Amino acid sequence: MSLIVTGSIGIDSIETPNQTVNDVLGGSSIYFAAAASFFGHVRLVGAVGDDFPPHFLETFKHFNVDLEGLEQRVGSKTFKWRGKYHQNMNIRDTLSVELNVLAEALPPVPKAYQDSQYVFLANTHPAGQLALLENFPNAKLTIADTMDLWIETEKETLLKLLTKIDGLVLNDSESQQLTGESNIVLAAEKILAMGPKFVVIKKGEHGCFIQHAEGNAALPAYPARDVIDPTGAGDSFAGGMMGYLASQDDFSFESLKKAMAYGTAIASYNIEAFSLDKIKTISKDCIEKRLNQFAQMLTF
Amino acid sequence: MSLIVTGSIGIDSIETPNQTVNDVLGGSSIYFAAAASFFGHVRLVGAVGDDFPPHFLETFKHFNVDLEGLEQRVGSKTFKWRGKYHQNMNIRDTLSVELNVLAEALPPVPKAYQDSQYVFLANTHPAGQLALLENFPNAKLTIADTMDLWIETEKETLLKLLTKIDGLVLNDSESQQLTGESNIVLAAEKILAMGPKFVVIKKGEHGCFIQHAEGNAALPAYPARDVIDPTGAGDSFAGGMMGYLASQDDFSFESLKKAMAYGTAIASYNIEAFSLDKIKTISKDCIEKRLNQFAQMLTF
Repeated sequence: MSLIVTGSIGIDSIETPNQTVNDVLGGSSIYFAAAASFFGHVRLVGAVGDDFPPHFLETFKHFNVDLEGLEQRVGSKTFKWRGKYHQNMNIRDTLSVELNVLAEALPPVPKAYQDSQYVFLANTHPAGQLALLENFPNAKLTIADTMDLWIETEKETLLKLLTKIDGLVLNDSESQQLTGESNIVLAAEKILAMGPKFVVIKKGEHGCFIQHAEGNAALPAYPARDVIDPTGAGDSFAGGMMGYLASQDDFSFESLKKAMAYGTAIASYNIEAFSLDKIKTISKDCIEKRLNQFAQMLTF
Repeated sequence: MSLIVTGSIGIDSIETPNQTVNDVLGGSSIYFAAAASFFGHVRLVGAVGDDFPPHFLETFKHFNVDLEGLEQRVGSKTFKWRGKYHQNMNIRDTLSVELNVLAEALPPVPKAYQDSQYVFLANTHPAGQLALLENFPNAKLTIADTMDLWIETEKETLLKLLTKIDGLVLNDSESQQLTGESNIVLAAEKILAMGPKFVVIKKGEHGCFIQHAEGNAALPAYPARDVIDPTGAGDSFAGGMMGYLASQDDFSFESLKKAMAYGTAIASYNIEAFSLDKIKTISKDCIEKRLNQFAQMLTF
């Protein structure tokens, strides 16, 4: 499969009620790429600074992520984020952010990547997402993520992006912010009227929801007893979803639903350890096993 | 089936962003009984005042609810509640409450009801729930609901009740309040350690969760596009669940899961109109149809 992702690559420091880790590998495109890689080869476009720890590259290699599109920019610094989770692990504060190389120009898309058929635009400035999308006029499937900041400050550009992509992925609070509608079905219908063929709304511990021309569906999250670090759950969900879709080349409603279930299974592993520590230890068989448990849970 | 329910019977006034209704039939045991009645005969124990509108009795008759345990108390007034929903229909304020007859002694359990095998103690003072439970020492299945007020003010009595019932039904915020645990799996495990064989945690628009010795499971809510009035959703969920269980006489984990799905289907109808207006118009076939749609939604 020719799946490409762009988004942040970061050095994260994460505080939870039980444990703190400093300077671990993070970023939206990293969690996405690792999750998607269970279904095939993933191409990554992004930039880091000359402070990027060389041993992080081992993780990319572990997941067989293609690094031709990774630029290590001399004189720049890597994106850094520090966050703190509360006793309720669903609530977090950002303690500090250093955009660094994320505030600079995107690296170019390598020539070898221009035949990418499946394009995931992880969360970044919608103008950057639009510019990137222009590299792939013949893509079969394009999905974008976004965030509250862009809905607030770059709504016009975001609305333009929505007319050019197949699918949008966002949080429930963001769907409400974008549409002014608190009912998730009505919010999703309004988003479809803005352009995309489907929208997937992430609800964290409460699961996910899809609205599509053929119908809608909600799935719960996989019940998580041991939540060590929720960071990247939404990105690994999207990665699992998009990885499955790319591997099947089937974007029907039923296929999208199964893709959400795969995303749910992988995200449920992701939160069992910091950074990619858990995902690094599992095989595709583990994911299949959890998917089956999830399907069994939903059978009555 | 010999299913008995006790709880509030009320005269509700409900304000929503789009519409207001005054003096409609409400109360926890009413929503419960109507939902459970799709599976068989329901016995109701409760009191109303001499102000209780006679035409409300037609609704009881419509649902074939046995009224031998309904006491119309001369000189007393019926429980009254006035609530207001916000633009986000998941948030409501209680504008006024008149406990009236609810603050008086419970009516006696009719002799003919003492062979009841399935007992649902809808939300009320846990001392009252305990007293009522004593009427049914040989019941096959006893489930209680509770609320934040009793967790805060009557915790010891509530903990005693928990050692005597098979199942507890409560909201997610209440499960957190009762256990001090925000993770739903850990909270549910702590509740099982308090006595019940299972706990069902209601999450409103986010569905429900069950913890049982045999495992746990989460179900989403049925996606609701047209939410007119969420009042009674939790009670009709519990009624559908308990009605199914009583009709099957099977309290295994798998049966409980199917019972939650029936509860979900009926609750999704309940919120489509004020009071029991929607539930009054549907047949068991409608419920089976929605249950099948729900099962189909959860198949991938």
